Amino acid sequence: MNEPKIQDVARLAGVSPSSISNFLNNRMGQMRPDTQAKIQQAIEQLGYRPNNAARQLKTGVASMVGLLVPSLANQFFGALACAVEASAAKYQCHVMTFSTFRDPDRERAVMADLLAYGVKGIITGSALSDTEHLAAITSRCPVVAFDIKRDDESHKRIMTISVDNAAATAQAVQHLALLGHKAIALVTPPPYTLNRQERIRGFQQAVAAAGIAGELVIADATDGPSDPHGDTRLFELGRSAASRVVTAASRPTAVIAINDMMAIGLGVGLKQLGRRIPADMSLIGIDDIFFCAAHDPPLTTLRQPIQAMADAAVQRILAPADAPDGELFAPELIVRSSTATPPQ
Amino acid sequence: MNEPKIQDVARLAGVSPSSISNFLNNRMGQMRPDTQAKIQQAIEQLGYRPNNAARQLKTGVASMVGLLVPSLANQFFGALACAVEASAAKYQCHVMTFSTFRDPDRERAVMADLLAYGVKGIITGSALSDTEHLAAITSRCPVVAFDIKRDDESHKRIMTISVDNAAATAQAVQHLALLGHKAIALVTPPPYTLNRQERIRGFQQAVAAAGIAGELVIADATDGPSDPHGDTRLFELGRSAASRVVTAASRPTAVIAINDMMAIGLGVGLKQLGRRIPADMSLIGIDDIFFCAAHDPPLTTLRQPIQAMADAAVQRILAPADAPDGELFAPELIVRSSTATPPQ
Repeated sequence: MNEPKIQDVARLAGVSPSSISNFLNNRMGQMRPDTQAKIQQAIEQLGYRPNNAARQLKTGVASMVGLLVPSLANQFFGALACAVEASAAKYQCHVMTFSTFRDPDRERAVMADLLAYGVKGIITGSALSDTEHLAAITSRCPVVAFDIKRDDESHKRIMTISVDNAAATAQAVQHLALLGHKAIALVTPPPYTLNRQERIRGFQQAVAAAGIAGELVIADATDGPSDPHGDTRLFELGRSAASRVVTAASRPTAVIAINDMMAIGLGVGLKQLGRRIPADMSLIGIDDIFFCAAHDPPLTTLRQPIQAMADAAVQRILAPADAPDGELFAPELIVRSSTATPPQ
Repeated sequence: MNEPKIQDVARLAGVSPSSISNFLNNRMGQMRPDTQAKIQQAIEQLGYRPNNAARQLKTGVASMVGLLVPSLANQFFGALACAVEASAAKYQCHVMTFSTFRDPDRERAVMADLLAYGVKGIITGSALSDTEHLAAITSRCPVVAFDIKRDDESHKRIMTISVDNAAATAQAVQHLALLGHKAIALVTPPPYTLNRQERIRGFQQAVAAAGIAGELVIADATDGPSDPHGDTRLFELGRSAASRVVTAASRPTAVIAINDMMAIGLGVGLKQLGRRIPADMSLIGIDDIFFCAAHDPPLTTLRQPIQAMADAAVQRILAPADAPDGELFAPELIVRSSTATPPQ
């Protein structure tokens, strides 16, 4: 049997096709309850499924882009989602956002759903080092990934957008070296992700180039089996890592956190251990989430150009001709009051 | 012509139907690139559209719930989205999250899309006072709304979940009155939403009951035409409202912010005006977002039981038998260091 059409539903319900369209698009301000009930009954009786693509063309209901992020509990990804939504709105497009907790099975399942829904494209900020499953779907819809490397063969078909992660930590080291620090720690959750690996690489190269000691402190995230990458617990992981920073063998006088959420946790932990910021220990984050300005003291950080990156990601999918050429965005050092000369 | 079936695609591509299923569900670890290409070609040639409902039953791909929030830039709603995702995962269900900026047209369009996608239900935390469009869709899928009142006739069919908003501000007033404050300000963006109206009502009743002065300061959000309710600019609105608090006629010695995001902005603004917290001015928020603990000084607030509320909302939709009876959740006063006795 053929799929039932909107006209079939209208005939059975005894109303016009435009009433069905109003019903489907939730424009029922003028519609009597008994009319609504009749339409609902006819839809169920015929097993009518609205053709979403056709319906969108006709009614102007927005098209969709899917956005995957590690965890919306990290305010950076909430702000990124808002930026992507603002960009997509210019193209009459809505954004569906999902936290994946970097679980590959969850990523795969969400992407399968998004493809079934006919999304215009998928933007992901939650990629792990293993991105085979991302590469595999590029034949079915455009995929833009934040923070993965382009040089890997399996990534060739994925469009990438990234802040220059290695430059972010390198700039942080250079800022601290100029202030006179001779030993610096970098604190990160387990670095399974490429952006964390890149930030570590930039850190290690920069401390080597500056001839100072660099110590890597990897926070233990194993107590959270449902979130092994620590994305929902960055604040807590930072707080508990503070004791490892103050007892580190190289006696660091400054600490770089892998991102601001972790830096804010580190700040609380350091204060609980009696360390003053920046008099005893300089502290610097990455992202520039809005809390940085309210932090005590205001937090020095490397700002990600979040709206520009969101615009570029959305344009790659919805308006490739408008998209900028580059895929690597420069971080900007925002010097506030959490970094200073080391204690004597 | 009949809709093409998965068997038709398999025949044309020269593979088994289970290979097509693996392709559609993005399980391509073992699949050769030329096989993938053949399948993609067959899908396009036949115009095959996977039947999402049937596919989900067969493959166990998760069902979906839609979540609407005012703005993911407010960390409270990012944390709420994570809590809803964690609840829904227990029922093998994914959550699609949207920021609506409380725009009724945007809400309506997103809901129409969600209905077309066959979501199991819709949870909204972005409702305005006017919720006609919410009530209208309850005949088509379960709707759970945070922060709307049950006593309005148009809301009868909407399931509601809410923190007791009036109790939150009342508890804040009682805490401050016990400390000896005689004049208290409440700062809010324009109170078009029911939760803000309830918080104002609780404030006004509590100051009257305590026999102290209560002053309402409504932040001006008119400079943001795309966000007239101020949800993405709570920090900025709070910061700029600080000058109105310190010049208020009743000379308040304590200020309650409508939520933590606004409290954090107020804190920065008050410090810029030379006011010490809490020595010159006590400050108290609502929500208990993670940053409260990192605030200087740590912020007293009224905690929303966010995971319990998320669980209740998800259960109302996916497992009504498990859902708790009550719909009003008690806020919990978390006393930190931003509230103290008033200056002499």
